[in-house]
Amino acid sequence: MRERVWNFCAGPATLPLEVLEEAREALLRFGDSGAGILEVSHRGRHYAQVHAEAQAALRRLLGADDGWALLFVQGGASLQFHMVPLNLGLEGDYVLTGVWSEKALEEARKLGPARVAASSEASRFDRIPAALDLRDGAPYVHVTTNNTVWGTQWAELPRTRAPLVCDASSDILSRPLDLSRCDLVYAGAQKNLGPAGVALVLVRRELLERSRGRHLPAMLDYAVYAEHDSLHNTPPTFAIYVVGLVARWLEARGGVAEIAAANEEKARVLYDLIDATPFYRGLAQPGSRSRMNVTFRCPTAELDERFAREAEAAGLIGLKGHRTAGGLRASLYNAMPRAGAEALASFMAEFARTRG
Amino acid sequence: MRERVWNFCAGPATLPLEVLEEAREALLRFGDSGAGILEVSHRGRHYAQVHAEAQAALRRLLGADDGWALLFVQGGASLQFHMVPLNLGLEGDYVLTGVWSEKALEEARKLGPARVAASSEASRFDRIPAALDLRDGAPYVHVTTNNTVWGTQWAELPRTRAPLVCDASSDILSRPLDLSRCDLVYAGAQKNLGPAGVALVLVRRELLERSRGRHLPAMLDYAVYAEHDSLHNTPPTFAIYVVGLVARWLEARGGVAEIAAANEEKARVLYDLIDATPFYRGLAQPGSRSRMNVTFRCPTAELDERFAREAEAAGLIGLKGHRTAGGLRASLYNAMPRAGAEALASFMAEFARTRG
Repeated sequence: MRERVWNFCAGPATLPLEVLEEAREALLRFGDSGAGILEVSHRGRHYAQVHAEAQAALRRLLGADDGWALLFVQGGASLQFHMVPLNLGLEGDYVLTGVWSEKALEEARKLGPARVAASSEASRFDRIPAALDLRDGAPYVHVTTNNTVWGTQWAELPRTRAPLVCDASSDILSRPLDLSRCDLVYAGAQKNLGPAGVALVLVRRELLERSRGRHLPAMLDYAVYAEHDSLHNTPPTFAIYVVGLVARWLEARGGVAEIAAANEEKARVLYDLIDATPFYRGLAQPGSRSRMNVTFRCPTAELDERFAREAEAAGLIGLKGHRTAGGLRASLYNAMPRAGAEALASFMAEFARTRG
Repeated sequence: MRERVWNFCAGPATLPLEVLEEAREALLRFGDSGAGILEVSHRGRHYAQVHAEAQAALRRLLGADDGWALLFVQGGASLQFHMVPLNLGLEGDYVLTGVWSEKALEEARKLGPARVAASSEASRFDRIPAALDLRDGAPYVHVTTNNTVWGTQWAELPRTRAPLVCDASSDILSRPLDLSRCDLVYAGAQKNLGPAGVALVLVRRELLERSRGRHLPAMLDYAVYAEHDSLHNTPPTFAIYVVGLVARWLEARGGVAEIAAANEEKARVLYDLIDATPFYRGLAQPGSRSRMNVTFRCPTAELDERFAREAEAAGLIGLKGHRTAGGLRASLYNAMPRAGAEALASFMAEFARTRG
């Protein structure tokens, strides 16, 4: 059996080894429950503790006090694309920065006249738009804080008059998030938080009033999740358990400020190499570069293919770019150690030297 | 650390030990991927095989040919309560047989004038209604094949003119399902199929025409799942992986007919004891008794409490009844061995002897 490799997949993504080791032990016997973590009732005391501890650790890491409801929802960010307009209002302002914000807009437009407040499509989404054209009275403004496909990231969140909704799926807990500017934050877990199968939703309690009493479908109503502490029906217990382990791992590593510095360094290792090597071209404008997903190209698509193939043979997997963007992409989520970024930089230098 | 006990939880429920052992190994290293099962891309070849094998094994076990679409959806049966009317039509006929069918009706009524075709509420859901009052032209008829809360089960599915929709969450793959009478079957995984976090949906392909082209939210549209093979967005990869392991475990045990005979025997062990012991009273009428959830009471609620407590101390957990029904409940899903039912029967006999 092959040893663990450096896994640069965009998500599901690499997880901390310590987390996997702890989860492995819990599969057959979880605490003193007499059963495995997959087998304990979501109404029993063993799972109740898992649920509460995951929530508490996430609140500490995010700095979210009780003015925020913290929810666990199935269906990934994709279901949030529908739940946000369904719960908050139909005429949201969307900032288009790539594939995922386009999908969010597409789902919103199935419900109502959502609008484009800014877009960087004209430059192939190589940057975060500088200026936003926001409507007075929009029910919310929607941004994608980090764009996995094109490798861009908001350096700073915009200040908006309308509530700001952030799809933070690919950079949550990778750097401090200025909650004073946000009103709803959602994130599929499978990048920085844990395994696929659960999304975290953080929503200001006053926004819950927008859905309360409207008899929305229970599984699509933020107020129902808040009222039942995300236990209206059986939650994805194992995914939440692993999210809790990841959150505690992050706390033990020093928290969000520490990991942000480490992420900054990891990204710099690769961007410095790209900038210093004419063989490679970065896809994102320097001021909009993502710390999570470093996108780049070799001189030809053929060399991109070869790069991905030879990297995989060298134990560096998941480097092929998204089918929409092409090229190459290295995802450097929290669980990727600096040694992984350095191994990739060495491979890149050698590849450029021998193929360039 | 406590050893594994007999786990009679209604769901999440006990899983086969062999399945847990295999999943445990995959957490750190899955095949030759160089990564754990939680960490492999849902677009990569390793997960593609997991997905396809789980689907194929489920199709073989269910006898579902290509005339059926087999989908993996998040949100449990509860999201299906909304998706069924959204996709199939707003005026379904519902047969009420307990808490879950009531919830299904409640969600359907948020969308349109769904109707009650029969109900056993007058007798506290102690039976499956004998006669159904079905409307001509209803878009579908909805039944809950097994009722976990009250411990009843349809002995045979009804023949209906309108498409029959079955919530089979708590008895799927526990006995042969007559697909010739069904048109859509859904089941949350956390009882007979695997862990919480994924629901199986089996739907006749012609029914997909009802949603096609209507621009439903992607995550709520059966046609989108069918078209993208449940990979429109990141699926709950680990939950599907475990469902595949459970399906293969069931095939290795001889398949659905074999397990149905075993389930029949397990249930008989308990029902025989209940019928022979005046101390206990079964909640369900004999002709409507569930093979999956055996519900019963002691002479007083106090003795029920004491039973659950002492049983737990004796290594028999999860026996407290649902809060709606009270009393006691033993869930005997596929993964519960006969020895578990026998251990419970011995405990019951002894409890009745000493407390009766």
